Amino acid sequence: MNRILSKDLKNHSGEDVLIKGHLFQKRIMGKINFLIIRDKEGLIQVVLKDKNEIDKIESIMDESVLYITGKCIYDKRAINEAEIHDPKIEVVSKVKEPLKIEINKPEIHANLDTLFNNRAVVLRAPQKRAIFKIQSIMVQAFRDYAIENGSTEIFPPTIVGTATEGGAELFEIKYYDKKAYLAQSAQLYKQIMVGVFEKVFGTAHSYRAEKFGTSRHMSEFIQYEWEMGFIESYMDIVNSAIDIIKYMKKNIEEKCSDEIKLLNIELPTLPKKIPVIKFREAQKLIKDKKGIDNTSEIDLSPMDEKMISEITKEEYQSDLIVITHFPRVKTAFYSMPDPEDEEYTLSFDFILRGEEILSGSQRINDYENLIESIKRKSLNPNDFESYTEIFKFGMPPEGGFGMGVERLTQQFLSIENVKEASLFPRDVKRITP
Amino acid sequence: MNRILSKDLKNHSGEDVLIKGHLFQKRIMGKINFLIIRDKEGLIQVVLKDKNEIDKIESIMDESVLYITGKCIYDKRAINEAEIHDPKIEVVSKVKEPLKIEINKPEIHANLDTLFNNRAVVLRAPQKRAIFKIQSIMVQAFRDYAIENGSTEIFPPTIVGTATEGGAELFEIKYYDKKAYLAQSAQLYKQIMVGVFEKVFGTAHSYRAEKFGTSRHMSEFIQYEWEMGFIESYMDIVNSAIDIIKYMKKNIEEKCSDEIKLLNIELPTLPKKIPVIKFREAQKLIKDKKGIDNTSEIDLSPMDEKMISEITKEEYQSDLIVITHFPRVKTAFYSMPDPEDEEYTLSFDFILRGEEILSGSQRINDYENLIESIKRKSLNPNDFESYTEIFKFGMPPEGGFGMGVERLTQQFLSIENVKEASLFPRDVKRITP
Repeated sequence: MNRILSKDLKNHSGEDVLIKGHLFQKRIMGKINFLIIRDKEGLIQVVLKDKNEIDKIESIMDESVLYITGKCIYDKRAINEAEIHDPKIEVVSKVKEPLKIEINKPEIHANLDTLFNNRAVVLRAPQKRAIFKIQSIMVQAFRDYAIENGSTEIFPPTIVGTATEGGAELFEIKYYDKKAYLAQSAQLYKQIMVGVFEKVFGTAHSYRAEKFGTSRHMSEFIQYEWEMGFIESYMDIVNSAIDIIKYMKKNIEEKCSDEIKLLNIELPTLPKKIPVIKFREAQKLIKDKKGIDNTSEIDLSPMDEKMISEITKEEYQSDLIVITHFPRVKTAFYSMPDPEDEEYTLSFDFILRGEEILSGSQRINDYENLIESIKRKSLNPNDFESYTEIFKFGMPPEGGFGMGVERLTQQFLSIENVKEASLFPRDVKRITP
Repeated sequence: MNRILSKDLKNHSGEDVLIKGHLFQKRIMGKINFLIIRDKEGLIQVVLKDKNEIDKIESIMDESVLYITGKCIYDKRAINEAEIHDPKIEVVSKVKEPLKIEINKPEIHANLDTLFNNRAVVLRAPQKRAIFKIQSIMVQAFRDYAIENGSTEIFPPTIVGTATEGGAELFEIKYYDKKAYLAQSAQLYKQIMVGVFEKVFGTAHSYRAEKFGTSRHMSEFIQYEWEMGFIESYMDIVNSAIDIIKYMKKNIEEKCSDEIKLLNIELPTLPKKIPVIKFREAQKLIKDKKGIDNTSEIDLSPMDEKMISEITKEEYQSDLIVITHFPRVKTAFYSMPDPEDEEYTLSFDFILRGEEILSGSQRINDYENLIESIKRKSLNPNDFESYTEIFKFGMPPEGGFGMGVERLTQQFLSIENVKEASLFPRDVKRITP
C-alpha cells in the first residue's frame, strides 16, 4: 500500500490507506480517543476505538514514529478535511525519553537558550518548520530570478588567506602549518567572476567574530550575493534588488499560504514604486518628521533606520526603503564615488521594517582610482594587493550587493531574534548542535 | 543604444549596434585587421579599417574592456554568424600589465601552479569558463530534481563543536575563547532535518585536512547532500541518485551544447538500466575478468574502481556502476547492517568512469542499535553523544548520500585533476586567491 500524505488524504475518502508520521498528540479520554499524526506537510487525525490499539499506544511518547493503516473518511471539519477510522498501528521508532519541550502547543514557551539546546526537536514544531520552509522558498526565488536574469551561480571558497574587508572580526583557522581565515564576504570572488560570467550570484557562508550577543548578529550566516558587470548605473543594481525582493514575496504568497496562516503574520507591504532617497535626505526627513537632528552624522544609527521606516511606511505605504549615497568616509574603500559629489558614494542600503537587510554599491573598477581610494582612507595598498590585483586586468563598470538570508527571513516573518531564522545558529556562546 | 550579446547579434544584421566586452584578440596585419571581443556568452568579430580606430587600439592589451558601436553584418562563416563593420571604439578599462598567461589560445600551456596563481585571469578563458557554466547547470539540475521530488533545501552550519566522522583530518578554528572545527560533512544536520521535512537536500561546504597533494583531494569542497526519511529500502535512495545523475546529464545536453563542443568531450554513457552489484560480486568480477584476486580485501582500492568500471563499460555499456553492501568493518558506524547478513551494510558507492563520486547508506535509526554499532567498532558512545542524542526522539527508516560537486564535474567532463573543477581550489599549499 502506498503512503498517503496529510494534504492528499481528502482525495482518498472511502479507501483503505497507509499513513506514516510522528505521533504529534494523543487524546485518550476513555470514550473519545484521537491520535494526531504529523507528516512533512501537516497533521492527520486518527479516531481510536479498538481497545487493542489503545493499549498499544498508551505508553508511547509523543514524536514516536508510527505507520498506520485504516479507513479514510472525508470530514469537512477535520484537519486537512479527512480522518482515519479503524486504525491498525505499527510503532516503528519509539521515543526513549520525554521531550524537554512540548512542541505540539500553539505557543512554545521556553527561553531562547532552551529552544536552541533542544533545537533538533524544537524544529519539528509546525510553527518552526514553517519558518524554514518559507526560507527555502525565498532562496529558490532568489536563484530563479538571478538565473532568469542571465546570471551564473558561483561557489566561492570560505577558507581565505587574507581579509578583504579589513582585519577585525576574523576567525582564524589552523591551516596545516599556516594561518588562514573564514571569509567575511565573497566580495573578491564575485568580482573576479564578473570578468568571467559578467553577472554572478551565489548563497555564500559568511563569518564574523562578533563579540556581542545581540538579537541582530550571528557568527556564521548566509548571504545572497549578486554582482553585475557592464552596468550603466548603480540604479541597475538597486532596481534588480527591489525586483528580487518582490519576486520572493510573490513566491511565498503562492507557495506558502499555509505557513503564513500558521505563523499568523503579514508579509511586508511592497508598493509598485519603492521609495529611493539619498542619505542626507533621509536625515532631513527624520529631522522634519521626528524632530531629531542627526544631520551631522555620517551614518544611520539603528534608531534612525527605525524612524525612517516609520516615516516611509506612512508617506509611501512601503515597508521597504532604499537609502543611497552614503558618505565616502563611512563606506568601504571599493565603493565608487558619486561623480557629482565625491564626498558621497554610489552605495545603498535597503531598510525593511526598520532593519538593514541589504548593502551594496557600484564598485571602483579602475586600478589607479582604487589605490587612490585605499590611500585616502589612510590604509596601505600593499595590504590589499590580493584584492586590487585583478583590477589590473580590465574590469567593466560593475557593482553588486550582499543580503542576509536570515535577516531577510526575520524581517519578512516578523521574528524577534535573527537566530530564530537560522537552523543551527552560531554565536559567541553556541557551536552546537 | 542597448547592448547586443554575441549570440544574439545575427538577429540584428543591418542595424547599428552596441557591443561590450573584453578584447580577446587583436589581429592587426596592415590590410586586414580584426578585433575579437569576448562577452559572457561568446566571441564577436570586429572588422577594423579606419586608421583612427586602429591607432586607438594599437597599444591596448588583451582583456581590456571595450564598448564598440558599429554596423552589424550577417555572415554565415563568422563566429556567431555576424560581424561588426565600421566600429567606433571606446576603451572603458585598460589592462595595465601584460597577462602572464595567454588565454586566447585553443590550448593553455602552463603547469597547474601557474594556472592557479593566475586563476582570476585564467578563468576567463572560454575553455575554463565552460567548466563552471556546466557545473552551475549541474547544481541547478540537482536542486530542481530534489525539489520536484518533495525535498526541502536546508542550510547547515560549517562551524561545528565536535566531529561526527571521527577526529582525524579536522581543521581547528579559534572560536572566541573556545575551539571549534570546520564540518567534515552535514550528516548530523541532514538527519536532524529528516525529523522536520522528511526529505532534505543541500549543497554543503565540507572540509578535510588532507595532507596529500593528490589529484583527487581538496581541503574544501562542496557536496550534494540528500537525506530521505520514511524509505522502504536503501534502493529508494540508490534509484533516486541514479535518476538525479541522469537528470543532470540531460540538462547539460540541453543547455550546454556549446560548452560541450568547446571542451571537445563526451558525457558519460548512462544506459536505461545502470548496473547495481554487491561488493563481493564486484571483487569476483575483477577476479574473473582481470585475473586479479582481491576477494579477501574489505574495500575497493582506486585500482579496483578503475577495473570494475572497465568491466561494466564492456558488459553493460555503462560509465556508471553502483556497488552495494560493503563490509561492516569498513563502513561508518551509522550504516544499517544488512538484515540478511549482518557482516555487510546497506551502503553503496557510485563509481563513474573509474572514480568514486557518491557514497551513501541506509542509516541505523534505532538508538540502542546505534550505540551497539559504535561499541562494535571499539569506539566510545560518549564521544558521539551529540550525534546519537537525536535518535532518542523517534527517527523513521531513513538514509541518504553525499556526492562531490567537483568530483562529479571532473568525471563528467574528463578533467584530469579535481582542482580544475573548483573555482578557487584549496589544498595543503594553496589558500589564495
